[in-house]
Amino acid sequence: MLLKTPYLLFLGDAVDPLAAKVAQGIKDWRPEHCVGQFRQPGCNADMGIDDLTIAQAVERGAKTLVVGVANRGGVISESWISVFEDALNAGMDIASGLHNLLIDEPRLVNLAEKTGQSLIDVRVPQHEYPIANGVRRKGKRCLAVGTDCSVGKMYTALALEQSLKKIGKLSTFRATGQTGILITGNGVPLDAVVADFMAGSVEWLTPDANDPNHWDLIEGQGSLFHASYSGVTLALIHGGAPDALILCHEPTREHMRGLPNYTLPTLEQLRDTALSLAHIVNPDCKVVGISINTAALSADEAKTLLADIEAKMGLPTVDPFRDSADRLAQALS
Amino acid sequence: MLLKTPYLLFLGDAVDPLAAKVAQGIKDWRPEHCVGQFRQPGCNADMGIDDLTIAQAVERGAKTLVVGVANRGGVISESWISVFEDALNAGMDIASGLHNLLIDEPRLVNLAEKTGQSLIDVRVPQHEYPIANGVRRKGKRCLAVGTDCSVGKMYTALALEQSLKKIGKLSTFRATGQTGILITGNGVPLDAVVADFMAGSVEWLTPDANDPNHWDLIEGQGSLFHASYSGVTLALIHGGAPDALILCHEPTREHMRGLPNYTLPTLEQLRDTALSLAHIVNPDCKVVGISINTAALSADEAKTLLADIEAKMGLPTVDPFRDSADRLAQALS
Repeated sequence: MLLKTPYLLFLGDAVDPLAAKVAQGIKDWRPEHCVGQFRQPGCNADMGIDDLTIAQAVERGAKTLVVGVANRGGVISESWISVFEDALNAGMDIASGLHNLLIDEPRLVNLAEKTGQSLIDVRVPQHEYPIANGVRRKGKRCLAVGTDCSVGKMYTALALEQSLKKIGKLSTFRATGQTGILITGNGVPLDAVVADFMAGSVEWLTPDANDPNHWDLIEGQGSLFHASYSGVTLALIHGGAPDALILCHEPTREHMRGLPNYTLPTLEQLRDTALSLAHIVNPDCKVVGISINTAALSADEAKTLLADIEAKMGLPTVDPFRDSADRLAQALS
Repeated sequence: MLLKTPYLLFLGDAVDPLAAKVAQGIKDWRPEHCVGQFRQPGCNADMGIDDLTIAQAVERGAKTLVVGVANRGGVISESWISVFEDALNAGMDIASGLHNLLIDEPRLVNLAEKTGQSLIDVRVPQHEYPIANGVRRKGKRCLAVGTDCSVGKMYTALALEQSLKKIGKLSTFRATGQTGILITGNGVPLDAVVADFMAGSVEWLTPDANDPNHWDLIEGQGSLFHASYSGVTLALIHGGAPDALILCHEPTREHMRGLPNYTLPTLEQLRDTALSLAHIVNPDCKVVGISINTAALSADEAKTLLADIEAKMGLPTVDPFRDSADRLAQALS
């Protein structure tokens, strides 16, 4: 594990609940990792768990203070730093996915050295990854691929893990981005890995399983159809060598995220492109289901759309947030 | 320009001509950049140009000593370092594509600081690249894509540049690997770029052209079908947004380079996969020709094979080394 659990969730002076979405993700998906939250004056987010001082958190066994809030203006403020210093002095590590790195703050670096604690910037690769060797591993792997970036791939994989657990199937969520890494305490920050080692880092993240029926649920990144990040997605497909693909889509998106001149592909285009590329490394790969983020639709609209897509594509189609990923989990068995 | 020209080619104690293939590439493709060569006792390579001392090279205007030889055993030897020190003292920069970095040699770093010269490790990105924005640029772009790694993509692009020049067409070779960068003095070491910035670095490398008929000839990397490096190749396709693709192939290769369990794709598979991915960013992209590395075949065998492939694929098919890239250049016009 990259991060020691359990955590104290640092919400700081979060301007609103959205600013604390990393903390929310940890609380939603790994409540057992959270001993409590630390909030400062002006904090407008609340995870509904105990507010603790640093001393109380240590008493409850907290090993890591996790920065669960986005900072304002790209600066780690003085009021945050003094809390982090208290945490280091009390024997906690600090973990963060902020763009501004903990290791760029000399006061924290000096103190961590003195106290023997770790500063873990999960955006920075913490390992030397190998070049991919393309060798098939034991166990099974599922990867969520999207028509675009930010369409719900991470959520889909986390919901799948929950649904598989309900039916007694073994699985492990494999994080490939900073939020996923903070949630699970482990993973590869794939978009920060050097090009030559991308696929190798995904192989490293999804090693041979002990049980041949164990599923690695690999967090997707980017999109094969997104000009800026498609190479990262292909490295995920070829490093992950998935047995199963799940197509993810947000039906109201008008253009590719950040690329106003690009329309989204159809689900059929995504299916055909992703599957033919996956077959290069795993000829048995199948598309097993579809995950639609219907947050922008009414309940009725969502129901109709899901049914329409299911009929057209011939695959179980769900919104894992509104419903659950249970039908996708069934499709994986 | 990353490197100042002209160069003194450092051949050191090259064990054989193959060990000096970087120097050979510079001499073959940019003879006008080479004032001479520097050889040490035991050197078994010869570029057929004047042997010069450091002082003589400076007199002839040499601005950069280029390490044109692979080192043995992964160490930059003492005898090399003393030559490099002489070059720095004489006012030359030093450029290298070795795995062992110049900037990891404290003696060279200290001296370069003192003399004000530069140590340029072309494997290390020398620039902060942007995230790709997917915006079409003026001018045209051609990219060589391969059924595998190391099938002649760089050679094809350099030969194309020569052939286009012969018929009075404007073009620029755009290097994406260390040898190409040393040859042309500029480029992006794509396999060392951080994942998120791969496609952006290729956009940066191939900016708007002044002349709408100017061709950027982008050096290919990896292969869409190579599990270890396919992500790099897709970033090249989506960052380069090519108008023309050239398919490259080595007909005697028994398996993908370094991946004994993977067979090569057919030229038809490469054509269809690369073209459909290129169409995401440039719907006008076409496959215009085929480049076959027939080094392992007799002249007769090569002639027959090229004719067979040309008939089957319906595209001009050449070995640019045996013949020239003239017919590919015609296809680009």
